[in-house]
Amino acid sequence: MSAMAEAWRARHPGHDVRLAQALGDPAEIDVAVCWFPPPGVLASLPRLRLIQSVGAGIEHLLHDPLLPRHLPAFRIIDPQMAEGMAAYVSWAVISAQRGMSRYTEAQRAGLWATAEVEPPRQHRVGILGLGALGLNCARTLSALGYRVVGWSRSAKPDLPAAVEGFVGAAQLPAFLGRCDSLVCLLPLTAQTHGMLDAALFAQLPVGAHLINVGRGDHLVEADLLAALSSGQLGLATLDTFSVEPLPAGHAFWGHPQVRITPHVATRTPLDVIAAQLLENLQGLSHDTPSARQVNWARGY
Amino acid sequence: MSAMAEAWRARHPGHDVRLAQALGDPAEIDVAVCWFPPPGVLASLPRLRLIQSVGAGIEHLLHDPLLPRHLPAFRIIDPQMAEGMAAYVSWAVISAQRGMSRYTEAQRAGLWATAEVEPPRQHRVGILGLGALGLNCARTLSALGYRVVGWSRSAKPDLPAAVEGFVGAAQLPAFLGRCDSLVCLLPLTAQTHGMLDAALFAQLPVGAHLINVGRGDHLVEADLLAALSSGQLGLATLDTFSVEPLPAGHAFWGHPQVRITPHVATRTPLDVIAAQLLENLQGLSHDTPSARQVNWARGY
Repeated sequence: MSAMAEAWRARHPGHDVRLAQALGDPAEIDVAVCWFPPPGVLASLPRLRLIQSVGAGIEHLLHDPLLPRHLPAFRIIDPQMAEGMAAYVSWAVISAQRGMSRYTEAQRAGLWATAEVEPPRQHRVGILGLGALGLNCARTLSALGYRVVGWSRSAKPDLPAAVEGFVGAAQLPAFLGRCDSLVCLLPLTAQTHGMLDAALFAQLPVGAHLINVGRGDHLVEADLLAALSSGQLGLATLDTFSVEPLPAGHAFWGHPQVRITPHVATRTPLDVIAAQLLENLQGLSHDTPSARQVNWARGY
Repeated sequence: MSAMAEAWRARHPGHDVRLAQALGDPAEIDVAVCWFPPPGVLASLPRLRLIQSVGAGIEHLLHDPLLPRHLPAFRIIDPQMAEGMAAYVSWAVISAQRGMSRYTEAQRAGLWATAEVEPPRQHRVGILGLGALGLNCARTLSALGYRVVGWSRSAKPDLPAAVEGFVGAAQLPAFLGRCDSLVCLLPLTAQTHGMLDAALFAQLPVGAHLINVGRGDHLVEADLLAALSSGQLGLATLDTFSVEPLPAGHAFWGHPQVRITPHVATRTPLDVIAAQLLENLQGLSHDTPSARQVNWARGY
């Protein structure tokens, strides 16, 4: 966060930006901008009136057992974040569906190795979770020509016409059976923790590609390794991990069917965080409801 | 073409499919399905009444000095081909803009190397050529969040609202100045042969990314190598080459700033070629005009 603090100070000289490690007088802090706040710090700030997550999720805040849940908290919902995510997911889907890495290897060997080309509409992509990020991915992958299905806990009236929607636990098996690639964009809640497990993988078409851009804790890592070994899954593209940085020696690092990126699928530009924070503050004074405000009961 | 012939026979047992090397009685051939027909063969077929290109272009036919230009010829215009092209171009743009290859290298080294993430709307993509393939690329890259500009010889009324259009030689410099990535999707004609040259590269922003999915002969290879050396261009993704397969020992193979794919950006499914061919034949009998029919004067 210290690079972010520096950049924030440079761009918004009117803000008094302090790091958790050097807060000065705790009674001077109005607002907390957080990723993983050190446990107990938020509860120690008597004047705190707003918690701003720097991400689309808030489950990282829950690692603080003293989290002051009576305070309003906000997460980021931002078109640029959604576009960055859709670009990453599109890259992951296209790379695997078209087998682009074999061309990189062929070039290294100086080989002209032409191959069959499968058109996008012969490949089915499932989006697990249809919040702002999932909906935008569904739209973008449709525009690319992929056959897109989406699953959400509750019905989504704003689903694009080309995207077939599935709702709730009852329709999950039908959804999973249609996913040549499966993209996890769920919020991390008690219900979704460990949801990417052996039972779920068994319902995917054989050889499916898992793309986890949700959270590391959506995934049961041992079940993924077993599904890749058995061939039930063909490939996994992972951007998030239970422990980050992914520890040295972890089985994912050298695995030929696992592609690792270091939590870079998307990010919110600093100026957007700052702008949303100021808007959230103003909204609080005027009692304006916001889709960005966290519903602690719902979990996001 | 022999694999194509076999597949065609298997799927369309009613068609009498023959290879150029074993045509049998030349007077029995009604239709020629061509990529690079052996020079002189088409002129030797007395009953030939239709030439079908298997690609979106027809310039490969022109290698035949005896090409019977009085016969109607058709090229492929197909949504699946356009979608495949847009997927390839999107992969090329995203891979480079997001620097995805460094994560592959980091994984190989077991390193968690996180990096800045530039949102799509901070990157400008230019589409040179707004035919069916170029227009669909422009639409798709817009849906991904990129800022898209397009250039065409003549004005395109069906340009998507989000795409800024530039027309004709007079507006080419303004267009080129806005291309962080430049995608060549021009038809290959006398006017566009060698158009990707030092003079054009000099008008791009420094460090731009060239994506050539047009034809190899659009590009002056020596000028590309010089522009990469000088830093005027940062990267080239090339799917087509003047000589294919790209010869062993060619300077592109081992070049760290050149990504080679073996002419796989897109392809038309066999069934689509067959269906369009039959439609073209029927259209001829009924004198129905077709956008797919080649205008030899225009060159595509």
